[in-house]
Amino acid sequence: MIETPDAPRFVSFLSDFGRSDEFVGVCHAVMLDLAPHLRILDVTHEIPPFDVRAGALALVRSAQYLPPGIVLAVVDPGVGTDRRIVAVEVEHGVLVGPDNGLLAPAVAMLGGARRVVSITNDAYMLPSPGCTFAARDVMAPAVGHLAAGVPVEDLGEEVDPAGLVPALVPVPRMEEGCVVAEVLWVDRFGNCQLNVGREELAALGAHPGGGVEVRFGEGGRRARWVGTYAEAKPSELVLVVDSYGLVSMAIDRRSAAAECSLVAGATVRVVSPGAPGATEQPSSGAGCSR
Amino acid sequence: MIETPDAPRFVSFLSDFGRSDEFVGVCHAVMLDLAPHLRILDVTHEIPPFDVRAGALALVRSAQYLPPGIVLAVVDPGVGTDRRIVAVEVEHGVLVGPDNGLLAPAVAMLGGARRVVSITNDAYMLPSPGCTFAARDVMAPAVGHLAAGVPVEDLGEEVDPAGLVPALVPVPRMEEGCVVAEVLWVDRFGNCQLNVGREELAALGAHPGGGVEVRFGEGGRRARWVGTYAEAKPSELVLVVDSYGLVSMAIDRRSAAAECSLVAGATVRVVSPGAPGATEQPSSGAGCSR
Amino acid sequence: MIETPDAPRFVSFLSDFGRSDEFVGVCHAVMLDLAPHLRILDVTHEIPPFDVRAGALALVRSAQYLPPGIVLAVVDPGVGTDRRIVAVEVEHGVLVGPDNGLLAPAVAMLGGARRVVSITNDAYMLPSPGCTFAARDVMAPAVGHLAAGVPVEDLGEEVDPAGLVPALVPVPRMEEGCVVAEVLWVDRFGNCQLNVGREELAALGAHPGGGVEVRFGEGGRRARWVGTYAEAKPSELVLVVDSYGLVSMAIDRRSAAAECSLVAGATVRVVSPGAPGATEQPSSGAGCSR
Repeated sequence: MIETPDAPRFVSFLSDFGRSDEFVGVCHAVMLDLAPHLRILDVTHEIPPFDVRAGALALVRSAQYLPPGIVLAVVDPGVGTDRRIVAVEVEHGVLVGPDNGLLAPAVAMLGGARRVVSITNDAYMLPSPGCTFAARDVMAPAVGHLAAGVPVEDLGEEVDPAGLVPALVPVPRMEEGCVVAEVLWVDRFGNCQLNVGREELAALGAHPGGGVEVRFGEGGRRARWVGTYAEAKPSELVLVVDSYGLVSMAIDRRSAAAECSLVAGATVRVVSPGAPGATEQPSSGAGCSR
Repeated sequence: MIETPDAPRFVSFLSDFGRSDEFVGVCHAVMLDLAPHLRILDVTHEIPPFDVRAGALALVRSAQYLPPGIVLAVVDPGVGTDRRIVAVEVEHGVLVGPDNGLLAPAVAMLGGARRVVSITNDAYMLPSPGCTFAARDVMAPAVGHLAAGVPVEDLGEEVDPAGLVPALVPVPRMEEGCVVAEVLWVDRFGNCQLNVGREELAALGAHPGGGVEVRFGEGGRRARWVGTYAEAKPSELVLVVDSYGLVSMAIDRRSAAAECSLVAGATVRVVSPGAPGATEQPSSGAGCSR
Repeated sequence: MIETPDAPRFVSFLSDFGRSDEFVGVCHAVMLDLAPHLRILDVTHEIPPFDVRAGALALVRSAQYLPPGIVLAVVDPGVGTDRRIVAVEVEHGVLVGPDNGLLAPAVAMLGGARRVVSITNDAYMLPSPGCTFAARDVMAPAVGHLAAGVPVEDLGEEVDPAGLVPALVPVPRMEEGCVVAEVLWVDRFGNCQLNVGREELAALGAHPGGGVEVRFGEGGRRARWVGTYAEAKPSELVLVVDSYGLVSMAIDRRSAAAECSLVAGATVRVVSPGAPGATEQPSSGAGCSR
């Protein structure tokens, strides 16, 4: 975490600010003004506006790779209300952000909260004519002061780590011959990551190289479980265990999301290859309740 | 500004280049080649193409937060013509960019120009087969050389600061019972910042917690003056004094710009709560001239 | 290239990852974890998904400006297949990326390959549950290790530089009275860069200030050869020798691509001013075969 003054120091920054406005640049400026040695790693700023869950998922996918130091995460639909802004100390760093579920999965992934401080000490905030930009006026200054050596407990009063707002991350549901899954993430290439791992697929009786049926919306499609995108035949829908260990629906060099009309949050049923109704011409009928 | 070689040195970079091409990356490369110690803060590069006013407004919103050092700002529809490229020395730094109004508001905000140099010395430019990319061939090299210790006066001849092209920033107009305002900025979240402050609202007789009427396009809507976005009821249009001290039209977790069909530059009339025609069912009629 | 530990060290990073996901940020994190002193220059990450040619062209346009050091380039539709991942040593650095034609033009521009290593040594890779993100698990770690001082030959076995997959960069074709060109690049502003230089225009009998006819799709248009965009009259289509030394179709402050319905890869015929059919009202007929 915050080592000697000479050590490299990083803040990893994620938000829903986009880059079309100067929000991200101004937060960089505020942090660098307080801690000019700080190096800022932009994780992504294109979380859909107000989408706390998408932000939490992107953060937890990244967390294990981020350099030791500080994480600043801002997806904050409650800006200006009495939702807390917190600094959460973990083994190798501190996470700063609104206490709305955004940080919780990453905190868990990083070994749990050792200490949580509610950032309320306005000696470490910027004065502002309004309260619509807490990232600039409260969170970025907190990060800058932490990087400049201010102890986390100076930022406000310590609060109970058990009181952190949890994230709502969906778990898959096993039913007779099928698993009821959810699209966690649609990436730039249109791959649809499900909240399903290799084990759930195997528990259905599926095996690498073999097929399953996937059902979504009004219909469904056969999908083959392959090792890489490029094993798919042209236009073939495949399932791939992706680099996060989760099952992803994909079409080689095309967008599975666009072709299947799927978005993050959609329900997808993966049906056992031997289940009734799991045929070459899937109908939207039996074998797996809707 | 340009301190000792060991001091941290920053350039804050704003443009209308977008990030889909390599323009921004190449400008970074040119600056870092000349001054490898330089650290570059990207304010935003998503100013709408050729929109000098939007660039000037984004720059002035950011200016007070930027680290001491150099500002490079490029929104340059006149690239290759005889418009000047200037380096403007202010108290804590130098601004480099085309002399087309882009820099003027930030220069004023930063205390005014101490010295202005027209960048004409081709010893500090890159040779190029064409003149369509002055940021790469003229402006970024000027920044790199400044950061490497070249005095600003070596870049070209000094010119009269009073001759800088001014920006066209609109001022609101008070009329009987209303203020005729303009949308300065629509941000990523759809909030519409007006060129109106708390004082103008108060002068209309409005008060925090109370309502006014806003008129735009063919119609109008009631809007309540609240402290934060989240005080709004679902779908309710509100006015918030934002973090820049200006009045912003907002709808909680939705885009006020989309719902009211507003874009930057649109005219909005804010009508006194007691004015004739300022009713619960606003008509597009009396009380405030159009 | 890789100098002493105290020297500035840069990696220039280009990809088709976009910034909406955290792919780019995670690659930054992996590199900085292994080489905290590394500085990362993002060339662009908005290469259209899977478009190896567009990536190769953006890289070669940038190559001469990039700081000495490492280049990481990732446009990798064959991720997870047996396509090689290579490190290509050139005079002033090393390029790392998939061997699919992406690197070849930049390698040639930078003086040719001195040595090529196929990156196969898994001691320098990250373990991963899947093989869909080789940039995170193979390429970024290779860059990090190179920056930390690992010799390039440790990354895998040396292979024949002559075996690198070449890029498919189109050359223009001279015909009777015309040159058959291709749109290489449509930039953010809608300028359409052709694979044609000043010499080809001159060989047609065109001269600066004079006109030619350009044909595309179903029709064609007069275009004047000017020195800068701003010399164009409103709505006038012009040809400009751009800052890469290539001829670009442009309309002042508007998108030539949108107005002429052109995209990268489209065929454009530039017809000699004296050719039959090269009139003020061009028809889609004689004088230049289709």
